[in-house]
Amino acid sequence: MNYQRIISTLGIILIFIGISMLLPIVWTLYYGEHDWYVFLLSSAVTFFTGLAAYKFTKTEGNFYNKEAYVVVTLGWFFASLFGAIPYLLSGTFTSFADAFFETMSGFTTTGASVLSNIEGLSHGILFWRSLTHWLGGMGIIVLFVALLSSMGAGGFQMFKAESPGSPLTEKIKPRISETAKILWSIYLIFTVAETLLLWLAGMSLFDALCHTFGTLATGGFSTKNVSVGYYNPLIQWIIIFFMFLSGVNFALYYQVFRGKSLKYFWKNGEFRLYLGIIIFCILFFTIKLVPITGGFFLSLRQAAFQVISIITTTGYATADFATWPFFLKAILVALMFVGGCSASTGGSIKVGRIMLLLKQSVIELQRAIHPRAIIDPKIDGKKVKKEVLLNTQQFFFMYIGITAFSTIVMSASGIDLISAFTSVAATLGNVGPGLAMLGPTENYGFLSDMYKYFLSILMLLGRLELYTVLVLFVPSFWKK
Amino acid sequence: MNYQRIISTLGIILIFIGISMLLPIVWTLYYGEHDWYVFLLSSAVTFFTGLAAYKFTKTEGNFYNKEAYVVVTLGWFFASLFGAIPYLLSGTFTSFADAFFETMSGFTTTGASVLSNIEGLSHGILFWRSLTHWLGGMGIIVLFVALLSSMGAGGFQMFKAESPGSPLTEKIKPRISETAKILWSIYLIFTVAETLLLWLAGMSLFDALCHTFGTLATGGFSTKNVSVGYYNPLIQWIIIFFMFLSGVNFALYYQVFRGKSLKYFWKNGEFRLYLGIIIFCILFFTIKLVPITGGFFLSLRQAAFQVISIITTTGYATADFATWPFFLKAILVALMFVGGCSASTGGSIKVGRIMLLLKQSVIELQRAIHPRAIIDPKIDGKKVKKEVLLNTQQFFFMYIGITAFSTIVMSASGIDLISAFTSVAATLGNVGPGLAMLGPTENYGFLSDMYKYFLSILMLLGRLELYTVLVLFVPSFWKK
Repeated sequence: MNYQRIISTLGIILIFIGISMLLPIVWTLYYGEHDWYVFLLSSAVTFFTGLAAYKFTKTEGNFYNKEAYVVVTLGWFFASLFGAIPYLLSGTFTSFADAFFETMSGFTTTGASVLSNIEGLSHGILFWRSLTHWLGGMGIIVLFVALLSSMGAGGFQMFKAESPGSPLTEKIKPRISETAKILWSIYLIFTVAETLLLWLAGMSLFDALCHTFGTLATGGFSTKNVSVGYYNPLIQWIIIFFMFLSGVNFALYYQVFRGKSLKYFWKNGEFRLYLGIIIFCILFFTIKLVPITGGFFLSLRQAAFQVISIITTTGYATADFATWPFFLKAILVALMFVGGCSASTGGSIKVGRIMLLLKQSVIELQRAIHPRAIIDPKIDGKKVKKEVLLNTQQFFFMYIGITAFSTIVMSASGIDLISAFTSVAATLGNVGPGLAMLGPTENYGFLSDMYKYFLSILMLLGRLELYTVLVLFVPSFWKK
Repeated sequence: MNYQRIISTLGIILIFIGISMLLPIVWTLYYGEHDWYVFLLSSAVTFFTGLAAYKFTKTEGNFYNKEAYVVVTLGWFFASLFGAIPYLLSGTFTSFADAFFETMSGFTTTGASVLSNIEGLSHGILFWRSLTHWLGGMGIIVLFVALLSSMGAGGFQMFKAESPGSPLTEKIKPRISETAKILWSIYLIFTVAETLLLWLAGMSLFDALCHTFGTLATGGFSTKNVSVGYYNPLIQWIIIFFMFLSGVNFALYYQVFRGKSLKYFWKNGEFRLYLGIIIFCILFFTIKLVPITGGFFLSLRQAAFQVISIITTTGYATADFATWPFFLKAILVALMFVGGCSASTGGSIKVGRIMLLLKQSVIELQRAIHPRAIIDPKIDGKKVKKEVLLNTQQFFFMYIGITAFSTIVMSASGIDLISAFTSVAATLGNVGPGLAMLGPTENYGFLSDMYKYFLSILMLLGRLELYTVLVLFVPSFWKK
């Protein structure tokens, strides 16, 4: 293990986070608030810690997959550790567990909150809170390019990243960073577009930015206590549209950016399934909501908003869906386990994995009839490699196993089974709100510290597609 | 498809069921009740329908796997159809849906009931109800030998049954029927032993027989409204012991019966895990129950009873576990998904499959570190075949997928999410009681007919390990 390079890379991440902490100061000054020193101090601590880590270590030697796993896991961990400083310095939280939970929830683009009165916070803190989403989303995009796609995450490889096990040679590095730059440009274009549209639709520039961060990262932090339900219908539709975009595989935008026609989307089976599930659920929810809301268009908007918010694992709310009929709640909980497309900013199992497993189920049934037949699943006309299939199947087992185990752990806190189960589904799946005691109008604040840390770990596990974190606990990982 | 032989085999099953229907008459006469004609009539209808089906069809031609799937699925279906006649004739149920649900619950060894006052039934009906369990358990044992073990059910093949796809040739047939005979002898020995012990411990012979049927088949139908909680501690311990035995792979008894030493049990990884889970959970539950019950031995007994009753998917109760703390309830629900060992009479996913998936999870993590390493999972020192692994992984996905889908369906009936979820877990897993509105002191009677049929299908699906039923819905199944 090349510890020197690991520390130095973590240093770069902290330097980057430290600089980002200066951004809220703009809003602090704009709104004439007095907590600018919070961000200056936090930034200084983070920046110089990062700089020290970078300066006093060697940046030489090989950087293998193993090192990458450590850097990614610890990267998110330290980002959340240092990112919690502004909350503590400003007095937003007096408990470290709260601050860590909120920051981890931000960087993992979960959007689960321990705050009961969001509107009571300063603009600087609100901005930092939303900014952690945006940075986390950015991190996920580059992570997919650099690491996860090589693990066959989502059932297929969209980018040919470094061949696993080999060092990130100088030949491959530029390709990764070039691809990452294009993807970040797309992310940036979306950011500017949504911010402008929300602003034009009547939001303040501040709220527009914060909600854009929450949307594109599929995070879900709002600046209002009642979430997006606070705003006018036009704003809600804009957010619906961009949540939908954020749940799509960014590699598709990349291809279109590089000259492919828009038809390319339609050729992607995962996109078709994603779109199909969404359209079907919206229609279904609309029909069921009309008797409750009394109006078709209101029902359509609430249905579209909640279905897309949950399947993309954003977690914004325009209605208290915890009061909806059990039938609709059951579907929403199921959607929490579907998640967005692979290589999107959405979390959870992902549409691509579910698609592959559904195809393989049909194949297994055919094999039960014709045991000697050899049938390989195909995605978009291409054979899926055996390793990718095994990886996907085990991902599913581990995801469900961790959900079951964690539900038991959470129920030990004394909360009812629906709260326990959905607290796990909503954090492991990076959704945010659950049901019952953790519904969209509630928050995670009442849990004791131990459970807040536990759920924070689940957020990290889910965000990094389980494997990245879990490999660190395999004993052979640490052997030479 | 050899329809003639399918019909003729179904005929034999009905003849067998018809003859079994005469048995309750013994108890009707013994207790001087007047519903003997119910069983005589039911028996006649069933027997002669079976005889006609057998007589007017040819018993020649090949019998492939395909035919076996159809026979097994329809066999359970028709058994439940005809087995419902006594309930209807006696007026126990006026609704066919109720009678069908109760009979399917019996033959699939589920033990879910739509009855609110069990003690109000005649001895004949009570005996028939429990007998369906015993017959269902017998069916499962032969099913494993003849069909499921060839599909690698439970992760490994204990018996070398016919090679799949080849006709059941005359050479193989005698071996299967010889193996089945030995297994049935074991089942019969257990039946006699438990009945005698329960009788000696204070039960009436009638109750002893009924509870033995419910125990060995891991069914759960009792003759008392409060289930086994009605009886003295000694009786409860005897039932605990035999529930445990029934959850063990019957192939292990077979091997010991044929001369292997008892150490053979310990060499079986699935048995060790099964035992380990049980011991761990009993100790844990005991500690947690002491403050509730106030006594150590009472807690130990309740813990042992409920843990073993649920993991073996029996479903008997000595305490209303729906009132236990959420923590313990969460564990019980998780155990509903574990189930007994493969080739036991227990249902659900099975310990063997979970063991294989846990091992493969570790292997996948190792592969994430060393992508070029080829590692095969081993069970009891033997490499697991790729097809068995794929089959197990997809089984898990389908089991969870069906659970999720069915929970949504059940929630459409208007019941809360815990009731909906556990109704599915308890029927698909052949457990019986669930939680909330379907807890151990409640019953399934309040559901409307549609949902009773739906849950009946789930019982069948679960009992026949999904594949057996689902293959019938693959279009290519019906092609030449």
